[in-house]
Amino acid sequence: MAKDKKTPRPKAATPKGFRDYFGAEVTEREEMLRIIAGVYHRYGFDALESAGVETVEALGKFLPDVDRPNEGVFAWEDEAEGWLALRYDLTAPLARVYAQHRNDLPTPYRRYAMGPVWRNEKPGPGRFRQFYQCDADTVGTASLAADAEICMMLCDTLEAVGIPRGDYVIRVNNRKVLDEVLEKVSRIEGGGWDRSGERRATMFRAIDKLDRLGPDGVRALLGEGRKDESGDFTEGARLSLEAIAIIMQTVEAAKSTENAERADEYRKSSGVPAALTDEDNLTLFNLFDASWHPDAEPTAPGELLSILNLVRSSGYGPDRILIDPSVVRGLGYYTGPVYEAELTFEITDERGRPRQFGSVAGGGRYDDLVKRFTGQEVPATGISIGVDRLLAALRAKGRIGQAKADGPVVVTVMDRDRMADYQTMAAELRQAGIRAEVYLGNPRNFGNQLKYADRRGAPVAVIQGEDERARDVVQIKDLILGAELAEGATHEEWKERPSQVEVPRADLVARIRQMLDEQGR
Amino acid sequence: MAKDKKTPRPKAATPKGFRDYFGAEVTEREEMLRIIAGVYHRYGFDALESAGVETVEALGKFLPDVDRPNEGVFAWEDEAEGWLALRYDLTAPLARVYAQHRNDLPTPYRRYAMGPVWRNEKPGPGRFRQFYQCDADTVGTASLAADAEICMMLCDTLEAVGIPRGDYVIRVNNRKVLDEVLEKVSRIEGGGWDRSGERRATMFRAIDKLDRLGPDGVRALLGEGRKDESGDFTEGARLSLEAIAIIMQTVEAAKSTENAERADEYRKSSGVPAALTDEDNLTLFNLFDASWHPDAEPTAPGELLSILNLVRSSGYGPDRILIDPSVVRGLGYYTGPVYEAELTFEITDERGRPRQFGSVAGGGRYDDLVKRFTGQEVPATGISIGVDRLLAALRAKGRIGQAKADGPVVVTVMDRDRMADYQTMAAELRQAGIRAEVYLGNPRNFGNQLKYADRRGAPVAVIQGEDERARDVVQIKDLILGAELAEGATHEEWKERPSQVEVPRADLVARIRQMLDEQGR
Repeated sequence: MAKDKKTPRPKAATPKGFRDYFGAEVTEREEMLRIIAGVYHRYGFDALESAGVETVEALGKFLPDVDRPNEGVFAWEDEAEGWLALRYDLTAPLARVYAQHRNDLPTPYRRYAMGPVWRNEKPGPGRFRQFYQCDADTVGTASLAADAEICMMLCDTLEAVGIPRGDYVIRVNNRKVLDEVLEKVSRIEGGGWDRSGERRATMFRAIDKLDRLGPDGVRALLGEGRKDESGDFTEGARLSLEAIAIIMQTVEAAKSTENAERADEYRKSSGVPAALTDEDNLTLFNLFDASWHPDAEPTAPGELLSILNLVRSSGYGPDRILIDPSVVRGLGYYTGPVYEAELTFEITDERGRPRQFGSVAGGGRYDDLVKRFTGQEVPATGISIGVDRLLAALRAKGRIGQAKADGPVVVTVMDRDRMADYQTMAAELRQAGIRAEVYLGNPRNFGNQLKYADRRGAPVAVIQGEDERARDVVQIKDLILGAELAEGATHEEWKERPSQVEVPRADLVARIRQMLDEQGR
Repeated sequence: MAKDKKTPRPKAATPKGFRDYFGAEVTEREEMLRIIAGVYHRYGFDALESAGVETVEALGKFLPDVDRPNEGVFAWEDEAEGWLALRYDLTAPLARVYAQHRNDLPTPYRRYAMGPVWRNEKPGPGRFRQFYQCDADTVGTASLAADAEICMMLCDTLEAVGIPRGDYVIRVNNRKVLDEVLEKVSRIEGGGWDRSGERRATMFRAIDKLDRLGPDGVRALLGEGRKDESGDFTEGARLSLEAIAIIMQTVEAAKSTENAERADEYRKSSGVPAALTDEDNLTLFNLFDASWHPDAEPTAPGELLSILNLVRSSGYGPDRILIDPSVVRGLGYYTGPVYEAELTFEITDERGRPRQFGSVAGGGRYDDLVKRFTGQEVPATGISIGVDRLLAALRAKGRIGQAKADGPVVVTVMDRDRMADYQTMAAELRQAGIRAEVYLGNPRNFGNQLKYADRRGAPVAVIQGEDERARDVVQIKDLILGAELAEGATHEEWKERPSQVEVPRADLVARIRQMLDEQGR
């Protein structure tokens, strides 16, 4: 930066990928988070707030997009503390907090946290580099009841903020299901399918596209490859037909009815819990069947069975919580059950086409995250709500943003020297619980004052000039009615409810209260 | 960082100067901020939330501690965006926001903001590198009514959160008062007192010590210098006795009664507003007198007179808002009135000595901050509350932190296979609005479950083993009473209110509700 030259004017702009939130954008989010915190709290979760800054080593490297500069985080070198970074989620800091304070915390430790996180990613439309998350996690228990509880709490949370039952579904999967199927495929294909390998990543990417490409598209990507609409060709994983069939049986476990009869027989002859539905039973049978191999008994479908039994017994049916083996969460630290909250109602996308709203929350079990610090096994599971996504959903459903604006009563200034009187009027209104302010711009042009009141969404303006002052009265202007009249309300309405009235100064508050009531505020 | 070697375990610790907030520490702050936002909103202020990250050039350099690395901010270079930094306050971002969005914002623009800010300062006891601020500002008006409004709103805010009248005072000063006195001194001393010079800084530092050293200490620092208790000598500014007298008259304007008679005569013969008290009148006279010079009429005391007249007319007396010319705010961007909220009740410091609680909020007018971006004059004024300081004050006054802990009802697990039943009990309690959770640790050792309930501050534990299940009953254990009994409650109390009861399963919720009522929750 230049030292001797005069500094040029700074640019008045956020860095790309950052934005400002105004008025209702802030207060509506606050209100939603308050409701969510209430649900979490009632479930026994305690608040935790850690700082935005952590050491890079404490955060670890679990972001999906690892080939970006700084591996997706904003980081800098501190003289005394080494490399520091902004947190990219609320889970990695929780692992650090639990490892640091575990002797002072109950076990298991249920905590919730809400706040901004930062990602050093390429910004795009609707994709920001700072955004809010709202998490709930249970640390220190391997019990699948913890996973079941999180899923049920997520249902309660969505309903509490205003997503009605039927408009959402929690999809549950288990990372180990795919791992076990992978091992079986590896045996068939003659190896080369180790857990961290490229072929595994190819399989995950293919499965992740089930929603968009359908089963045939996924089959093509697992086999020879696929040509898309534009003619571009994507190389496939070149698996055998048998391997592809196994993977598809897993992924489509919740949809395929091929095994329906066998599944039914199995249920009759075994101890499948009574709480499960026919569909649950079939899905689980398909998963057991796909991952079963003479050399290794699968354990993952059994974990899903446990979770499903718990939620069904508590009355959370398949309209709210489902097994869906095509759920593939991006973050690298998950070790077992993973879950995703999807909103199923349709919205219109930017090109005018209808589509499902999609995911608003996700999470899962991450048993190794605390172990990084302590060396000891500390199992944990939790959920993260994408706050901006959920807010957008509530707006799309008309749950928020429809309320009448809450602009303040504006007390205009007719005589600059009587500012103290105008402030007293505003103070009286506020004491009666009415939002009110004095106009503080240049009072010379009265038209500007009314324009200002309009811009503020003011329901009412108060006017007291020299003449009114002498007679100890005020003029009260109904700006809502005024706007309606300007837009052509009938003469009858005008007569019944005048848009401007003169009242004794002493009646100021009572008359404005009455006007606001008439306006339905 | 090593690539091939196995990474050592990361340290589970926050970087120095950062900390974690648990449970009530988080929720009590949220609650306080919600009350403050309510007051701000009623005054017509709108919420604004900007990102934690800004460009370094947009933030500018206004921190007092400019000789520290990175000039007090956490900054890093971004590939695409150049130097970015974490915001160090909420005022600099407001100037950027206003300059960027001014065509879409009302003028004047009243906004409030609350959130963390970051300072790259040397951490110390009670001094953190991330902390909360809570600001309210009015941008786009030079009217001193805006300053008066902020001071009155600050009074209302402090009372709303629980600081009673009489326990706080808002001290108001004007930077220009000292500047005008400085010019007068410069004339007497023969120049060398330009506004950015070292001697001016020496004067400010001396005045800032009035509280601690008293008038004689400040006099010494303005003159030959001062030896402290330990024998260390601080070099003085070596001013003439006449110059020192002028400065002291200014600084002690609110305390000295030397001019009382002259002030009284002046009031009678001039247009001093009737709303002012005798003390107000004397303070203002002292300021006019100290800064008056045949070559230049002072304007700053007149600005203070305007503010004082507005607040007095609205009923805010000298028990709440005072002129205090010794108020020197640290930040470099103030241009006119400055104000500070001080809590006047005594607390005991870490060495057991009584002292006043001190400052919890400060602010002032900064007319050039937006101009940096736009080139046009955009006057502005505002206040920033030190959230952690104010919370500490409320704790010291017993306003928060005294409420009964709100630990959840803990449903214990006697039979691992009946988890669904236990979850159903917890769900029923929650539906009745009672905070409840199932124990999710290893259930083998029942003693551990009760220890856990104790650690959670649970008021009640629910127990249902095989035997109770067969008889369709539950055991409910009153843990509060249990603890009292353990500490030696009398036999009579024990008989009247048993610490454990057996009730039909169907009465679970009703009986626990009754127990919580008995406990006064």
